[in-house]
Amino acid sequence: MHVSELETPSILVDLDLMEANILRLQSYLSQHGIANRPHIKTHKIPAIAHLQINAGAVGITCQKLGEAEVMAEAGIKDIFLPYNIIGAAKLERLMNLARRRVRMSVTADSEIVVRGLSSAARGAGLMLPVLVECDTGAKRCGVQSPEAAAALARLIARSPGLHFGGFMTYPNSEQLDPFMQAAKRMLAEHGLTVECVSGGGTPQMWQAHTHRELTEHRAGMYLYGDRYTLRSSAMSLAGCSFKVRATVVSRPTPDRAILDAGSKTLSSDVLGLEGHGLITEYPEARIYSLSEEHGHVDLSECASQPEIGEEVTIIPNHCCVVTNLANEVVGVRRGEVEVIWPVAARGRVQ
Amino acid sequence: MHVSELETPSILVDLDLMEANILRLQSYLSQHGIANRPHIKTHKIPAIAHLQINAGAVGITCQKLGEAEVMAEAGIKDIFLPYNIIGAAKLERLMNLARRRVRMSVTADSEIVVRGLSSAARGAGLMLPVLVECDTGAKRCGVQSPEAAAALARLIARSPGLHFGGFMTYPNSEQLDPFMQAAKRMLAEHGLTVECVSGGGTPQMWQAHTHRELTEHRAGMYLYGDRYTLRSSAMSLAGCSFKVRATVVSRPTPDRAILDAGSKTLSSDVLGLEGHGLITEYPEARIYSLSEEHGHVDLSECASQPEIGEEVTIIPNHCCVVTNLANEVVGVRRGEVEVIWPVAARGRVQ
Repeated sequence: MHVSELETPSILVDLDLMEANILRLQSYLSQHGIANRPHIKTHKIPAIAHLQINAGAVGITCQKLGEAEVMAEAGIKDIFLPYNIIGAAKLERLMNLARRRVRMSVTADSEIVVRGLSSAARGAGLMLPVLVECDTGAKRCGVQSPEAAAALARLIARSPGLHFGGFMTYPNSEQLDPFMQAAKRMLAEHGLTVECVSGGGTPQMWQAHTHRELTEHRAGMYLYGDRYTLRSSAMSLAGCSFKVRATVVSRPTPDRAILDAGSKTLSSDVLGLEGHGLITEYPEARIYSLSEEHGHVDLSECASQPEIGEEVTIIPNHCCVVTNLANEVVGVRRGEVEVIWPVAARGRVQ
Repeated sequence: MHVSELETPSILVDLDLMEANILRLQSYLSQHGIANRPHIKTHKIPAIAHLQINAGAVGITCQKLGEAEVMAEAGIKDIFLPYNIIGAAKLERLMNLARRRVRMSVTADSEIVVRGLSSAARGAGLMLPVLVECDTGAKRCGVQSPEAAAALARLIARSPGLHFGGFMTYPNSEQLDPFMQAAKRMLAEHGLTVECVSGGGTPQMWQAHTHRELTEHRAGMYLYGDRYTLRSSAMSLAGCSFKVRATVVSRPTPDRAILDAGSKTLSSDVLGLEGHGLITEYPEARIYSLSEEHGHVDLSECASQPEIGEEVTIIPNHCCVVTNLANEVVGVRRGEVEVIWPVAARGRVQ
């Protein structure tokens, strides 16, 4: 089936481009001796996770237990969950994953989380690797200083059922090396070594080797690309494998077109960008607002204009959240549909 | 099961409040002789559509064919699809719906759309009601003037397979009455009557009776409520039936809390509001940003502060897009889980 026969809106992945993106980052990280642990939040599709593993990734990263369960069910054997797992129900699910011959590892940024993990792992008779999440400038989760990182690492190391697995941060920043070096020095005084420093981010991926302390990198968007990634110059428009196909359903005025893709397809993520997507056939067009099932396009700067019924191709602002809205993604090679993947881990936020 | 036993993040609907909201709007519209045709984009759950019908709604509104297919499959018999249906595949799906003893009606705002509908309906041996979509100020789809509305109505009326079903607009505005009166006058000169003027919107719902021309109202959010609806004063905080339950997973600094609900749960919809949700237990807290699986909360104005592991209740900005992110919604009565509904029409954007 040719892509032109697909109904719209649909989410297309150019398989040649995606495979090239997977190989390119793997090759770069391997060359620099940095382990590659891609973040599957971007695609949420087990078959793509296997492609990443087969290309040389040491394992995958998931953000939620529900994603990890889907990936473990599909045969992925090494899953890092950089999240504070809290509460009896979630701890039991984590232990169930670790019991099924999946190498599960997690993060913690507080004593409360460490104590919960230790209690659960000890009860299950398991040894769970736990990394300390460090805030190196993102101001999200994470301990706030090398001193706090070292103290939590020591608590993990002496907690029954837990193994101190290293440090985790996101994204890679200039503070990464000084933070990790200071924390490592403090731990060395107590005879503790740091086996892994895990960083991440697609915009920063080609600078991974400049962080001396980094041993592992987690990137998500690198295999698809989007307007956010393009702005960072980490990827080129020609390399973007991820596109939304939409139809012009109305031309109410000479300067306005309405698309059949709104915020329930493209998401409302702005990420500091102007507008809601790039229409590749009409780059001067501006998707200036979205309602739920309509994309509002300003054509006033366009030399030529699309007609009612015409299909267009959109590079969205943020591929991760677009995937998470879709029930399926269409894999395309040279214009022909090769595979239709259910987005298996979509909406698995628990 | 008590709600406190649910894992987070989860989407809760208070059934007593939801049922009261359904009855309240139905009662108001019935009292004023306005037909009620609720928009199921908000809940996407067939069981709730049946509650709305059983309360007195004349039918439902869907925004996409995929939603209509789910609702028809569940036994809903009267579905209005105020959307331009374009292309052979979608026209065939529309005809398949109309063939299965569902009263389907749609809109058009251009000659191209009318001709496609006519060709498909004639081919299928059906008589399809088509309303003219009119732009009364929303600047989305819709014909731009009463003259254009009357001209398109006449085209529909003389097109084989089509029945002119009236005028549709959204939202109800001050221009509704003068626009419709002018268009009706022009049609009267040609012997055409307007059997339905369908308007919509939850913020404007209690003013529906002030629009003399309105014969039907489409509201979506009225059964749930959210911060956007609260701002419009159409609903009260006490009447909001829709809540997101989340857990504090990190307290990295004295003023910051991180929740396990991010943009993949709460959506990035802002709708002109400040922040991303109201935490009912800590109304001074400010959800100032979202990453995909983290809600970032500023506690600096809070007298008391939540601890790690504490669960909180969030009124999100926009219930329609939150529903569309969820795989299921939990119906709760007096704190006890009564039903867990799959969001059956979620993601059906085609």
